[in-house]
Amino acid sequence: MVVNETYSLLLVEQQELENLKKNVDDLFLIIMGNFVFFLQPGFFLYESGTVRQKNVVSVAFRKFINTTISSLTYFLTGFALSFGDGNSFCGFQYFALVDLPDEMMAECFFQYTFAAVASSVPSGVVHERSSTVAFVSYTALTSGFIYPIAAHWVATKNGWLSRLGFDDFAFSGVVHAMSGATCLAAAWMTGSRLDRYESGGQRRVVISPHSVPQMILGAFIFLFGMIAFNAGSQGSISQSGDGPIIAQVTINTLICAMTSAVTGLIYHRFIVDRSKKNWNYSSCVNGSFVGMVAICAGCNQFQCGGAFALGILSYLLYLAIQAIVEKLKVDDVVDGIAIQLGGGYAGLLSVPLFKDDGLLTNPSKSSPWGLLINAGGGIVIMLWSLSITILLYIVLRYFDLHRVSPADEKIGLDMTIHKEKAYDQTVRK
Amino acid sequence: MVVNETYSLLLVEQQELENLKKNVDDLFLIIMGNFVFFLQPGFFLYESGTVRQKNVVSVAFRKFINTTISSLTYFLTGFALSFGDGNSFCGFQYFALVDLPDEMMAECFFQYTFAAVASSVPSGVVHERSSTVAFVSYTALTSGFIYPIAAHWVATKNGWLSRLGFDDFAFSGVVHAMSGATCLAAAWMTGSRLDRYESGGQRRVVISPHSVPQMILGAFIFLFGMIAFNAGSQGSISQSGDGPIIAQVTINTLICAMTSAVTGLIYHRFIVDRSKKNWNYSSCVNGSFVGMVAICAGCNQFQCGGAFALGILSYLLYLAIQAIVEKLKVDDVVDGIAIQLGGGYAGLLSVPLFKDDGLLTNPSKSSPWGLLINAGGGIVIMLWSLSITILLYIVLRYFDLHRVSPADEKIGLDMTIHKEKAYDQTVRK
Amino acid sequence: MVVNETYSLLLVEQQELENLKKNVDDLFLIIMGNFVFFLQPGFFLYESGTVRQKNVVSVAFRKFINTTISSLTYFLTGFALSFGDGNSFCGFQYFALVDLPDEMMAECFFQYTFAAVASSVPSGVVHERSSTVAFVSYTALTSGFIYPIAAHWVATKNGWLSRLGFDDFAFSGVVHAMSGATCLAAAWMTGSRLDRYESGGQRRVVISPHSVPQMILGAFIFLFGMIAFNAGSQGSISQSGDGPIIAQVTINTLICAMTSAVTGLIYHRFIVDRSKKNWNYSSCVNGSFVGMVAICAGCNQFQCGGAFALGILSYLLYLAIQAIVEKLKVDDVVDGIAIQLGGGYAGLLSVPLFKDDGLLTNPSKSSPWGLLINAGGGIVIMLWSLSITILLYIVLRYFDLHRVSPADEKIGLDMTIHKEKAYDQTVRK
Repeated sequence: MVVNETYSLLLVEQQELENLKKNVDDLFLIIMGNFVFFLQPGFFLYESGTVRQKNVVSVAFRKFINTTISSLTYFLTGFALSFGDGNSFCGFQYFALVDLPDEMMAECFFQYTFAAVASSVPSGVVHERSSTVAFVSYTALTSGFIYPIAAHWVATKNGWLSRLGFDDFAFSGVVHAMSGATCLAAAWMTGSRLDRYESGGQRRVVISPHSVPQMILGAFIFLFGMIAFNAGSQGSISQSGDGPIIAQVTINTLICAMTSAVTGLIYHRFIVDRSKKNWNYSSCVNGSFVGMVAICAGCNQFQCGGAFALGILSYLLYLAIQAIVEKLKVDDVVDGIAIQLGGGYAGLLSVPLFKDDGLLTNPSKSSPWGLLINAGGGIVIMLWSLSITILLYIVLRYFDLHRVSPADEKIGLDMTIHKEKAYDQTVRK
Repeated sequence: MVVNETYSLLLVEQQELENLKKNVDDLFLIIMGNFVFFLQPGFFLYESGTVRQKNVVSVAFRKFINTTISSLTYFLTGFALSFGDGNSFCGFQYFALVDLPDEMMAECFFQYTFAAVASSVPSGVVHERSSTVAFVSYTALTSGFIYPIAAHWVATKNGWLSRLGFDDFAFSGVVHAMSGATCLAAAWMTGSRLDRYESGGQRRVVISPHSVPQMILGAFIFLFGMIAFNAGSQGSISQSGDGPIIAQVTINTLICAMTSAVTGLIYHRFIVDRSKKNWNYSSCVNGSFVGMVAICAGCNQFQCGGAFALGILSYLLYLAIQAIVEKLKVDDVVDGIAIQLGGGYAGLLSVPLFKDDGLLTNPSKSSPWGLLINAGGGIVIMLWSLSITILLYIVLRYFDLHRVSPADEKIGLDMTIHKEKAYDQTVRK
Repeated sequence: MVVNETYSLLLVEQQELENLKKNVDDLFLIIMGNFVFFLQPGFFLYESGTVRQKNVVSVAFRKFINTTISSLTYFLTGFALSFGDGNSFCGFQYFALVDLPDEMMAECFFQYTFAAVASSVPSGVVHERSSTVAFVSYTALTSGFIYPIAAHWVATKNGWLSRLGFDDFAFSGVVHAMSGATCLAAAWMTGSRLDRYESGGQRRVVISPHSVPQMILGAFIFLFGMIAFNAGSQGSISQSGDGPIIAQVTINTLICAMTSAVTGLIYHRFIVDRSKKNWNYSSCVNGSFVGMVAICAGCNQFQCGGAFALGILSYLLYLAIQAIVEKLKVDDVVDGIAIQLGGGYAGLLSVPLFKDDGLLTNPSKSSPWGLLINAGGGIVIMLWSLSITILLYIVLRYFDLHRVSPADEKIGLDMTIHKEKAYDQTVRK
């Protein structure tokens, strides 16, 4: 009897431990989700600092609305299309979170914070000229449709890319390269700011940010949030080995971001501005963004050395794409296209190269199949978001809704659309 | 012998698991408490952005002092009056945290962060004119006396409202409606800013915020902090079901806040500013505040649909109260009265209506008793804080200590009380 | 057989519980590390707010670069010198994190965030005049060499101070007093800002901060981050008693910081500015810094009363050191020398005095040995960082690399080193 009693006590104990593990996993996802959610003010600050003073209220409005729209659309359709049961293309279950099982609740919040990131980046590149209607429609489309479906491909057992072996741990491809392509489409279809080019469109004009402190605070928040973005992607903390992996992910994220930052700094100081000898903060900050985007895909598999190498290589790809964007005269307020495409795609390529059995780290044991899938899958994902965004913009342009009037643009969106100033510096009223 | 050994090993194991559960619960409370504590800079930023440039140092000073005073008073008397053993009106144990048992330590910190919120809101509504003495006294009174006693009524087994079945999970009533009433009393007794009304007090003057980016950063921090405010109210993460509940709470908070934000936006664009066609960021931001205050009471019990409906309804109550406040010519710098009273009271009413056995969701199984208690209890709580605050102000007004002199108000509190400017924009010295 | 089965199930269960405990500990360290990492934007905001507008980009650049350099150097050499196996002076294992065992990964990240703090403070005191080269070299030296070796002395079993019984829980000495000495050396060797003294160096000039809101936001972030700095120092959350200790640590940190803040406020209002009757926000904010630095050493052992007493006493030591610094005409932009030395050293002295068996709390059971070790060890640590920093500066001064040219200093570092303005307030371009 004592044996039976002990045994049944043990079963109770097992159940209790299982419950605790589940709850701790939920707590992990919610805390990491809170940190990733905090990227929203990061986007606001970085973008609001970057634009001119006449468009600051507009940025504030849009970034707040981005949080609003992305949450409502993601809970309405996004999560269902991503993580509901379905086919290899998309899910179709849990629309409006109806009948969502308890054990998926925390995951649902965590995944929302990714959709919020994916939909936030594209609005940055077309600030100072795009219309409210355009902004609202592609935000809703990205968080409620484009991103969720790409996430389904990669992050569910059923997804066609996941079945082929596409390897993208924290979504260098699905969030970053995807949104980079949206950025490209949006910036290209919207057209440049009126005063971006001089002398008949030949000379690019430097447009100074209105507040460097706002940008830098935003940049620090990105670092903080992206660490959780990557660590949270582990999805659980209760399984054996979870702890060391999220620690490695955290350290890799820092190393890759910071190496890329230093690369940008050195490149700018000793190559671009060799003669002027000035230290450029923005090359350093942008470099950190490239690195933190690139490391997402492989941060759970790389040794520190891989993170370091990727920090340098991703910056080079970023420079290449930046040069192309400049050549094409696409006007990008926050350099988001090159950061997201360059960093994101470099991340996708890095996994099959730098992981433990990678083409570079252990050539004899690896196969080029992984590289093919990651390279090709990344292109499909980018084409997906690029083409949908272009379709949307064809409609918007048809109705002439894609950007504000030239007169409004000149005055600034704050006084024309919002009828408010960002700063009131009269001391006495 | 092996059986006994196994059995005693199992007992050790049980004990270890219990210890871990307790520690994880403490960790949960401390992390959530840290997030709620981060609302303090949120208040600072939102209020400092809202006021005119001549009162920014004053806001900075008061918000920092609010953290100071609320922590010292709460640890001195607040926690004792709230959670010490006592009668149905208040506790009287653990003054100055003397003999506080280990297992209440984490709870004590978490509860402090609520007192800090409760005492912070009222100082916002009377900025730009109230005196330092008034500010210090009602801050100390709110965090050390008014709020703790109301919390005792609702959150302890002994509390008279708790015994009657008052249902207020994360304190829509005890924190928000309570502090809304304090706001009303303070703003009413302090009087309007001198330049708030023109033409002999007939026409209300719009006073522009001095920095929209500061406001918006504050608003984002509110969202971040209020998610933890609600999730942490679960109190534990180790019990079966805790994980899904805090996840549901998190999602409900987002849905309600964001629905209310959209309601505000639409109301303003298509009703108030129909002719001007402008998109108003502050109606949207205020809407989000109303929603996040309203959802506190029932966020652990509602389905997503309930959170959505409450988002709309709470905004309507807010509008009604805002209209009354305006009619009464009470001058409220941050719209805190309508947000806290409207959102808070809507939250109290929503629980008996929208919960699983609620009057609206399942009329046959529900009773109107819950609605009566929540509606009536909310009024008692509001009368409690309203009357104490009025008593305090009667004393302050008797000694003419309730507001600064008209001359000081005109110059601004920064140069008169603090003798410092908020910004120094001379580039060379 | 059932017995054996039960027994082996129990062993599995034990293993699972051990795994969970390890993972939860890692999660604890990573979350606390994330919070401490968030001190980086805190430093940026506080320092950037404090300087004049002509040096804001320079502060932004340096604070971002501080994060960059400190992470790369700490992972390269710092962690190895601190926590690798070695002798009583330093470790020499895990350079570049090679062969770092899984179970040390989370600890490594957490410890990095301390190195980032230790290396960030000194750059604040010499803003507005020090050269980029000087900044880069002492940042790298502090995070990669000076701090790690001091940490080895105190935080590892082998360390010579640890063996002698040096008692410094969350590094009042190793981080704060240490970096205070670096601050002193750097500020002294760099020399004053050109316009800091008038009338032939006799009269000190008040240099106003360019943005009080930035300072105050930074100050709030310090409070937030320092709570985690202290709580995380417990190192684990899975052991019996960990939960209450981190809760006590959190509350003690608040009490000590806030008591010191009030002390500063009262001292300034009723002693320094008695005649002017103005309320000074910065005395209050600086006071909070002193308190949060002082409480690090003993926050895990003190009752609330000890934290309260230390809040007052540490402020007095700070005042004394501030007076000396002023007398020596050392120019410190952020008052970092007095805060770090005063707070840090007060913290070291407080442990043997205020702990449960302390010289003041229980004289009969205590010995003066602990006081001797903490007092003497603190001086050795300060001499260590002071002398290395002076050596570095002797080299820098020899090559005239320690500060920018007087012409550049006058114009400001933004337009001379970075060729960018911090703010662009032209509304139309």
